[in-house]
Amino acid sequence: MIMEAPAIRDLKRLCIHTITTRPWSLEDAVRHYTAVGVAGISVWRQAIEGMNPVQAGRRIREAGMEVVSLVRGGFYPAERQSDRRRAVEENLRIIDEAAALGAPHVVLVCGAVPGQPLEESRKQIREGIEATVEHAAAAGVKLAIEPLHPMYADSRSAINTLSQANDLAEAIDSPVVGVAVDVYHLWWDPDLEGQIRRLGRMGKILAFHICDWKTPTGDFLYDRGLMGEGCIPIRRVRGWVEAAGFSGFNEVEIFSNERWTQINAYRDAS
Amino acid sequence: MIMEAPAIRDLKRLCIHTITTRPWSLEDAVRHYTAVGVAGISVWRQAIEGMNPVQAGRRIREAGMEVVSLVRGGFYPAERQSDRRRAVEENLRIIDEAAALGAPHVVLVCGAVPGQPLEESRKQIREGIEATVEHAAAAGVKLAIEPLHPMYADSRSAINTLSQANDLAEAIDSPVVGVAVDVYHLWWDPDLEGQIRRLGRMGKILAFHICDWKTPTGDFLYDRGLMGEGCIPIRRVRGWVEAAGFSGFNEVEIFSNERWTQINAYRDAS
Repeated sequence: MIMEAPAIRDLKRLCIHTITTRPWSLEDAVRHYTAVGVAGISVWRQAIEGMNPVQAGRRIREAGMEVVSLVRGGFYPAERQSDRRRAVEENLRIIDEAAALGAPHVVLVCGAVPGQPLEESRKQIREGIEATVEHAAAAGVKLAIEPLHPMYADSRSAINTLSQANDLAEAIDSPVVGVAVDVYHLWWDPDLEGQIRRLGRMGKILAFHICDWKTPTGDFLYDRGLMGEGCIPIRRVRGWVEAAGFSGFNEVEIFSNERWTQINAYRDAS
Repeated sequence: MIMEAPAIRDLKRLCIHTITTRPWSLEDAVRHYTAVGVAGISVWRQAIEGMNPVQAGRRIREAGMEVVSLVRGGFYPAERQSDRRRAVEENLRIIDEAAALGAPHVVLVCGAVPGQPLEESRKQIREGIEATVEHAAAAGVKLAIEPLHPMYADSRSAINTLSQANDLAEAIDSPVVGVAVDVYHLWWDPDLEGQIRRLGRMGKILAFHICDWKTPTGDFLYDRGLMGEGCIPIRRVRGWVEAAGFSGFNEVEIFSNERWTQINAYRDAS
């Protein structure tokens, strides 16, 4: 017996990450999302490159949408200390950008250095986050540690389970540091339900990201599926997240060469 | 500070999986392996298809090599009970094949069904193994549960961490059931050292498989690296396995389109 959350019939809790519709400009995304009633948008930094983030945030809100998050900060580990310092400086700028945009939190892809011991990367991740916590608090921006699937442990994140992310958030022990739960990264974990409950007790579920895992998956990065195209029990995990107290957006975050090609073809044809 | 096992200077504990040199026939593999002093061979079923396994085993031993394992059994889960029964029957045949070949254990890739809840697959895996334990004991063949990387949780194995494999072996509680530790699948796990120690205390480390994780990895199945080409701290993990009491072979198991192409080119040119 699988406990599932009931279907959601409106789009009031639906958020889309701009990367999902990567070929669209921010303006296109805002127009298309609002046209069908999508209520939230998570803004990838590339989508506002060269723009004034204050104006971008205002445009989004004037269109009737909520800025759910800025994606993404992190990538703290590096072999040289000067590079780690640069990463912290970059994260301070990202926090400022989130504040200007009006994003309540920044999603953190924590980083990893191929060949550097994972525990060293984890130490550097903790130091990196801690070096930005005070600035984030002053800016009114939270930091959402996103554990990434173990297949990204080589170069993208040394934080690969919700248990690790929870431990890290607990260790840093700051009201601005929480965790983003993404079904793509975590669905396989036998301890997922328990760790979601724990995160709920900590009051630190900052985000819930959805997409699906296709069989077969053709690419390590750009072959995520739309919800329903794969094997992830999304409604079940949503049930856990909601039972743990989360009432925020369901954020659709899909990297897909196939979908981006379709979007381009649609645009070229229209 | 990383504790590493010392380098091994001879090949007495080196074993190669025939899949590593897939383009070679068993005879070619035996000739080439022994020519450079490789002491062990793990035989993939494809390599002896159509052959008499008793004769294949004899040929290997006469060449001075040890049969380390037969690869692979498993794939127990299925939606229909008739298919699960067929999987058990197939595993009984594989056990007989291992006994005929003189392989002390069969490696189990446990299986998963896309969209079937992972805990249901895990239940079916346990039932499948339990249905073959008596036969394995009578045949003098052990069964090595191999936890697979979480990126294979959709369709290849619902057992994705050493902790899960250990739990399963403990639950089945049979002297013929143990675990195979493969660095490719497990290197990212923050709990790896502790679980290897636990498995050692259980007296159930049946195999140690090595290869490397390349950055980037271009294919979900066929882009493993040679030891040293990637980021896995292999000697460190070997240190843990040996400290836990394992003194068996270092088994090289590499699926690589790139290497197979090189082997073909070498053969065509010679």
